[in-house]
This record gives sequence, structure tokens and C-alpha cells, in this order.
Amino acid sequence: MRMNEAQAHPQYIPGLHVICDFESSDVAKLKDAASFTVLLKELIVTYQLSSLGEIMHSFPDAGFTAVVCLTESHISIHTWPEYGRATFDVFLSNYMRVNDGHAKAITEKILQHFNAVKHTTTEIKR
Amino acid sequence: MRMNEAQAHPQYIPGLHVICDFESSDVAKLKDAASFTVLLKELIVTYQLSSLGEIMHSFPDAGFTAVVCLTESHISIHTWPEYGRATFDVFLSNYMRVNDGHAKAITEKILQHFNAVKHTTTEIKR
Repeated sequence: MRMNEAQAHPQYIPGLHVICDFESSDVAKLKDAASFTVLLKELIVTYQLSSLGEIMHSFPDAGFTAVVCLTESHISIHTWPEYGRATFDVFLSNYMRVNDGHAKAITEKILQHFNAVKHTTTEIKR
Repeated sequence: MRMNEAQAHPQYIPGLHVICDFESSDVAKLKDAASFTVLLKELIVTYQLSSLGEIMHSFPDAGFTAVVCLTESHISIHTWPEYGRATFDVFLSNYMRVNDGHAKAITEKILQHFNAVKHTTTEIKR
């Protein structure tokens, strides 16, 4: 939850945006929006995040795309089972507490969920 | 729209993810979720994108956060009027056509909408 005029901090504290692309041969997982939804809900509870809404869409006999809008920013994913890959983002602001470690931990759990074999990660403080 | 087994392309063609942070003294615009929603709808029509759903949330007497999930990936924004700044992302895949120019054009239009005076942009092909 963000505060209004009574600011939590006199200066903006940049959050961590983890941008990750991975490869996986687990086509079933890359098509399985339902099990990713379960993971997302677990992550939101585990890391005490606040969801403002979720959008999930499965493409027929293909991948899925999902975005969760959080009080703390957002998590998004776009899977491409036909190419054995996916792109995802975990962006958590540091407004009420420092979430950098949580963003990295969530990234790891998503990679594990998909049995990722190779990945590239970019971290941006913003 | 993504195709299924009959792939449009034999290889994955990376899309362009534009990651932009800006400063603006236009506090009214940074608080105005409604006018940003109008802009988003115009951009989706202008650049022939397909929305899969939108989440918009205004924080009381503070900023707003919005995410649009697209067939082509997503657009997100988190505004901080109390700090005179915002972070946003425009990520468009290149599955059915090359959208790189559109991602850059949308970025410019969002910066114009908020009368941004200073910004940093990172572009990632992914």
C-alpha cells in the first residue's frame, strides 16, 4: 500500500526490475497456464505482495501470457512452447520495504517451475 | 494472434522491450489514470495491437499503476506524482510483424503525454 501526502520516504527509492529470458524443453509446463497461476498465487503469499488484478490468456495449442499487477509493481510472462522458451519480468518497488531479494527469489522459483536449462537475466534499478 | 503448430516462423524472432523512467512536474497528469486510459486505447488502435485485458488502479491522492496485457506482450506504467516521476515498459513481440518501430513510437507518445522533462531508456531485444 502506498501512502499519500505523508510520504514514507523523502526521496524515491528505486526498485529492482529483473528481466529474464529462458529456454526449456518442458513444453507441457510452457503451455500450462493453470499451474503457473497456482505458482503465482503461492509467490504472492510467500513474499507478502498485494495483487491488484491478474490477466491470463492461453493461446490455442500454444503458449500463454500472464500479467499480475501488484501494489509493488508487476510480474509478467509470455511463453513460447513452440520455440522452447519464455520471457518474464519481476518488478518490485521498494516503497514500503526493500524487495530486491524477493524479486531475485521469485525469479529463481519461476525458472525452477519451468525446468529452465539456460537463461539470461538483466537487472535494472529503477 | 499467435498460430499453433503451423508456425509463422521457423525460429523465434526477438521483440523489443523498451524500459523507460522519466521525470515530470505535471503532477495532475501523473495522478490522472483516466486520461492515460484514453491514451492507451488510442495507442492500441493506432498501432493495431490486440488487448487481452487491462488492470488500472489509482492510489488515494497519489499515483496510479496500469498494465495492459497484449497479444503482442504488454505495456505497464507506475506513476509517483509525489516524486515527480514514473516508470513504464512497452514490450512488443515480433511474431506476426515487426513491431520495434511501434514500441519506440508508443514510448515517445507516453513521454509526450506526461510532459516528461528528463528520461532514461533501456532497450532490450528479447
